[in-house]
Amino acid sequence: MKLKVFILLLTTVFFRLTAEDGSRLWLRFTDAGTETIRFSGLLADNSKVAVTEFQRAWKEMGKAPLSLTGSMKNNLLIIATPHERVIRRLIQSKDLANLSDEGYIIKTINNKNQTYTVVSAKNDAGLLYGVYHLLRLIQTNASLSGLNISENPSYERRLLNHWDNLDRTVERGYAGHSIWQWDELPGKISPRYKEYARANAFIGINGTVLNNVNAAPEILSREYLEKVKVIAGELRPFNVKVYLSVNFASPKELGGLQNSDPLNADVQRWWKQKVSEIYTLIPDFGGFLVKANSEGLPGPMDYGRTHADGANMLADALKSYGGIVMWRAFVYNPDGDDRAKQAYKEFKPLDGKFRDNVIIQLKNGPVDFQPREPFSPLFGAMKQTPIMPEFQITQEYLGFSNHLVFLSPMWKECLDSDTYCAGKGSTVAKTTDGRIFDQKITAIAGVSNIGEDINWTGHHFAQANWYAFGRLAWNNALTSEQIADEWIRMTFTKDQEFVEPVKKMMLTSHQTAVDYMMPLGLHHIFAWGHHYGPEPWCDVPGARPDWLPKYYHNASENGIGFDRTTSGSDAVSQYNSPLREEFNDIKTCPEEFLLWFHHVAWDYRMNNGKTLWNNMCYAYDSGVNKVREYQKVWDRMEDYVDKERFVHIQSRLRIQSRDAVWWKDACLLYFQQFSREPIPYDIERPVYDLEDLMKIKLDLKHHN
Amino acid sequence: MKLKVFILLLTTVFFRLTAEDGSRLWLRFTDAGTETIRFSGLLADNSKVAVTEFQRAWKEMGKAPLSLTGSMKNNLLIIATPHERVIRRLIQSKDLANLSDEGYIIKTINNKNQTYTVVSAKNDAGLLYGVYHLLRLIQTNASLSGLNISENPSYERRLLNHWDNLDRTVERGYAGHSIWQWDELPGKISPRYKEYARANAFIGINGTVLNNVNAAPEILSREYLEKVKVIAGELRPFNVKVYLSVNFASPKELGGLQNSDPLNADVQRWWKQKVSEIYTLIPDFGGFLVKANSEGLPGPMDYGRTHADGANMLADALKSYGGIVMWRAFVYNPDGDDRAKQAYKEFKPLDGKFRDNVIIQLKNGPVDFQPREPFSPLFGAMKQTPIMPEFQITQEYLGFSNHLVFLSPMWKECLDSDTYCAGKGSTVAKTTDGRIFDQKITAIAGVSNIGEDINWTGHHFAQANWYAFGRLAWNNALTSEQIADEWIRMTFTKDQEFVEPVKKMMLTSHQTAVDYMMPLGLHHIFAWGHHYGPEPWCDVPGARPDWLPKYYHNASENGIGFDRTTSGSDAVSQYNSPLREEFNDIKTCPEEFLLWFHHVAWDYRMNNGKTLWNNMCYAYDSGVNKVREYQKVWDRMEDYVDKERFVHIQSRLRIQSRDAVWWKDACLLYFQQFSREPIPYDIERPVYDLEDLMKIKLDLKHHN
Repeated sequence: MKLKVFILLLTTVFFRLTAEDGSRLWLRFTDAGTETIRFSGLLADNSKVAVTEFQRAWKEMGKAPLSLTGSMKNNLLIIATPHERVIRRLIQSKDLANLSDEGYIIKTINNKNQTYTVVSAKNDAGLLYGVYHLLRLIQTNASLSGLNISENPSYERRLLNHWDNLDRTVERGYAGHSIWQWDELPGKISPRYKEYARANAFIGINGTVLNNVNAAPEILSREYLEKVKVIAGELRPFNVKVYLSVNFASPKELGGLQNSDPLNADVQRWWKQKVSEIYTLIPDFGGFLVKANSEGLPGPMDYGRTHADGANMLADALKSYGGIVMWRAFVYNPDGDDRAKQAYKEFKPLDGKFRDNVIIQLKNGPVDFQPREPFSPLFGAMKQTPIMPEFQITQEYLGFSNHLVFLSPMWKECLDSDTYCAGKGSTVAKTTDGRIFDQKITAIAGVSNIGEDINWTGHHFAQANWYAFGRLAWNNALTSEQIADEWIRMTFTKDQEFVEPVKKMMLTSHQTAVDYMMPLGLHHIFAWGHHYGPEPWCDVPGARPDWLPKYYHNASENGIGFDRTTSGSDAVSQYNSPLREEFNDIKTCPEEFLLWFHHVAWDYRMNNGKTLWNNMCYAYDSGVNKVREYQKVWDRMEDYVDKERFVHIQSRLRIQSRDAVWWKDACLLYFQQFSREPIPYDIERPVYDLEDLMKIKLDLKHHN
Repeated sequence: MKLKVFILLLTTVFFRLTAEDGSRLWLRFTDAGTETIRFSGLLADNSKVAVTEFQRAWKEMGKAPLSLTGSMKNNLLIIATPHERVIRRLIQSKDLANLSDEGYIIKTINNKNQTYTVVSAKNDAGLLYGVYHLLRLIQTNASLSGLNISENPSYERRLLNHWDNLDRTVERGYAGHSIWQWDELPGKISPRYKEYARANAFIGINGTVLNNVNAAPEILSREYLEKVKVIAGELRPFNVKVYLSVNFASPKELGGLQNSDPLNADVQRWWKQKVSEIYTLIPDFGGFLVKANSEGLPGPMDYGRTHADGANMLADALKSYGGIVMWRAFVYNPDGDDRAKQAYKEFKPLDGKFRDNVIIQLKNGPVDFQPREPFSPLFGAMKQTPIMPEFQITQEYLGFSNHLVFLSPMWKECLDSDTYCAGKGSTVAKTTDGRIFDQKITAIAGVSNIGEDINWTGHHFAQANWYAFGRLAWNNALTSEQIADEWIRMTFTKDQEFVEPVKKMMLTSHQTAVDYMMPLGLHHIFAWGHHYGPEPWCDVPGARPDWLPKYYHNASENGIGFDRTTSGSDAVSQYNSPLREEFNDIKTCPEEFLLWFHHVAWDYRMNNGKTLWNNMCYAYDSGVNKVREYQKVWDRMEDYVDKERFVHIQSRLRIQSRDAVWWKDACLLYFQQFSREPIPYDIERPVYDLEDLMKIKLDLKHHN
């Protein structure tokens, strides 16, 4: 007994010493490079950020400093652009020919019986990404011999969208207030801006929209632009550009003009002057993100103009500076037609009407970041207008920062979806990254889950979603497994006993959340406003029908689901053949989208021979059981993780486990009123009464 | 689909028609007697309550009225005492010779090719019990042919103790306020008094203490005695006598005397006058129940007198009227010695010092109605003083009226415990029912779970505990299985598809509650005050140590449990050999009492080879799983029960299921701080954080 206690005490002390708060994200080098890495020296220009970044990490690894050298020793590490003569000697020009401005190569070169490791790129940005790639190899214990890497990013513009308000609340933010300290700026500069830039650059993100798409006109005031300038200055060394969301009514609201009509010359002039002012302060400013005529925001349609009229006016103002307009397609009106059809209906007719520095920013699904949606039919539908995917990294509909849900599989599901817009194989990825359409701009955006929490994202595992977004933006062909594997090794440990079960947990976690929240194509049955818990019964007098769960689930004694077939809203017809036929037929419609496209009788027999109702019950139950399984997986990992993060994650999994039961009970007991069938008796019974669940009103807001 | 819906609607209507609120308890005759019962007529004196009670039930069965007859027809039912000539003709005197005043016989008599069913007894009380027995046979579908039943009660006095206060709150009451409408009495008489009397008489209860043992002196005021008189009048026809709890300080508090010293002649006189006054109003008054010098209540020790001095003074006053004193042995002082030892220490020396109309009322265990306790060592220890067991029907420590816990197995465990006081086989039952000691009085008490709830007991299944107490008081040799079987058939249905699984659930439910609350001998780790949830960490500054959980569990890094061995408090020595040796040795101590008698190291290997800590974990987990299993059992019963009771019980089981998880998490996470061992990884993980559970403060009181 006594010996045991003693050991336990030691362990505790050890854990205390190495406790981690998650603030370092994937930039953890202290226990990286434990394998032998033999560099005899470094040949590089120490004034370049790529080189200082390497040296910085190398030092954190506890290695003796790599001395800068000019002579060609064996095992030399060379970090340089072709401006350096040594590169031109070692690398053939064709090696660099296919690189984009941000691409890089990493090569092991054997020359005259000596071996060199070379990181090269056309310019400094690529060099930085190359160095980060090399560091990731070291962190993940990958082999450093025989390297022959050549990478270009999938998208030119890889952006975070911060839904951060100027009062520092964050819409759909679950990791504390905004990291942008507007009140302190421009005088005081938080050290986190640079940490933020490094973390983003490390995973390939090269742009950020600082403020909420529900934009305050004040962001364009001189006062705020001075603040933005300072942030831009902090991010610039890491190749991260600043963009802003703008309020379409800014000319009137901020400028005092009569209106904000895009065809009004005064309005056009106002924007031109404003853009000029911005570029004077921030010469590499990226451009504007616009949410217009959506959910009550102003836009060109207020003046009888089109989205194109609005976007083009802004594009004209930005054009000469190289700035772009990202115009959001998230629009829908309570006009009686299926909300899922509306983006397509409004934007498809405008194809070809946009300037070449406009790109349409489109959510992955046709409704709104639901746990699972089919891809939006607008992908591939606009052939003369570039589209950029908008993913939501922040878990508005997936348990906030309480639930462990790895989003990469969900995004991959969208990216890998075949639109058939140019024949078989026309995936969403290809329709957006330039492989199908001749695009002047390619881009992708992720709605940030970052806040001022010490671990940045609230849940430690939510860091993986930020990471995954960056990695997929860089390379949309990566698999979720590759990404999870990298992230686990960099964030926690390289021990396979940890990596494998935790990876498995991450990779199944999205399906698990779908199962306990809204399986089989169910969607938008969340609680009013905050979207955390279940509220399929939600009925708010006077509310827009398309903001109410019943609009989506249509549960009655006859069945459940949204009929989007040709007999229903006909949303299926927005898809290309053969998808429209496949979705339209209940027998061929993928069962994961069954209730998205069909209103289905409770006793409908699904592929496994069980009724819809029973399948629904088993799905919810499976979700609960899988979360409980995750708890077991995690608890077994106690010895592999520092105490601080272990307990934090353990606690969140407990919440998730309780919430999964809440979801299951709420949905099954509510829908059971219509199905009038028992929950299969081999399933764990509900532990709540429906009437009690219906009384739950969480005091949560849209923003923190 | 349509047909199905129609059938469902019909079913709903059907259920609505037959919906039950539980108010009829076990007195349900509408669906009794569905089997052919052939009585050609009834020979009886219609003025007797036994006969009117039979007729009443017979009518409820929907049978054609049995005509009263004087002629000896075949299949005649005869209900009569030997005062009727027909009985003296049919029954031999030896048949009745062994009957006590309340005993009865039920016989099938074949005489001159004719068959009669005879219910007989020495007097009316026995006749009533006999008729109720016959009705129970009908209700449970037992055979009515070849009957040869002869029954005497195990205990002469079979009492409920109401812990009802005069303001109609009920201490440890979970079924609404008191059924005694003191404010309306004596003018208005609730119909429930008679229903109460019938329900009790039906199961053999023949006495009731109307008010809380924490007695208000006012109960003895003329005003209240007039009210008591009315209640007594309502109960009298059903052979239920009224008793009262008295406050020992009544002479001073109510009578205005200088003190309440039992040796003070004024005090003695006051009590004699008060008793005389009572008997003038209620000639068959039963006697007094006294809680004295316990938990702050006054008593003879306030004047340096003994319990015997106090009890005897009251006994002297009651003696000539046939009244008795029930003096409670539930006494303990914060004197530093083990609380479990104190009743024995205080009362054993007084053996032989009490009047012959005094009986000591003793809780089943030595501490206080815990989920599981060994029997109190005072049973069998007083050889010249009768002892009556006090059981707690109300679930103070067993989930209130939220948890389904059938208490019969717990009481049987006590009754069947061998005290070895007069050699092997000296069970608690025998030490109290007169089989071992030559007792002038035998009695048993159960602390009532009755309130004004429409179903009397809050939880429908809590009715079973009231029922079981009555049945065991009548016959302490009945098995829990017999009792459960009867009760289920009378309360719900005789369908075996229902009876068997529900009976199994009931019979295992006590062990289940022990498992999820305090297995392996753990005790008194309840929340402060209300005793509903877990609070093993409870620490109230300035509180009596023996009111705090830590006093009982003694958890530390070294282990857990109360050392009551000869090396500890030596409570084991209050037990007779061989029990004291068996309990004293950790190897022979029954594992269900392990932590009651021993302080045990966490890594102690138990009989199954697993450590104490792991066994504790598996026990809690088993409790949770069993409640979940009960939910499944119950949900499958939906077609056998009226909707109203089905849903009510379903809802309570959901609470119990949640509470079981709460208990498990609270206890395991709290004790884990000391065990420093992981919860075995095959067990479902905690879903709460200890720090959150420690913040729970339920706004519950001692009384409703």
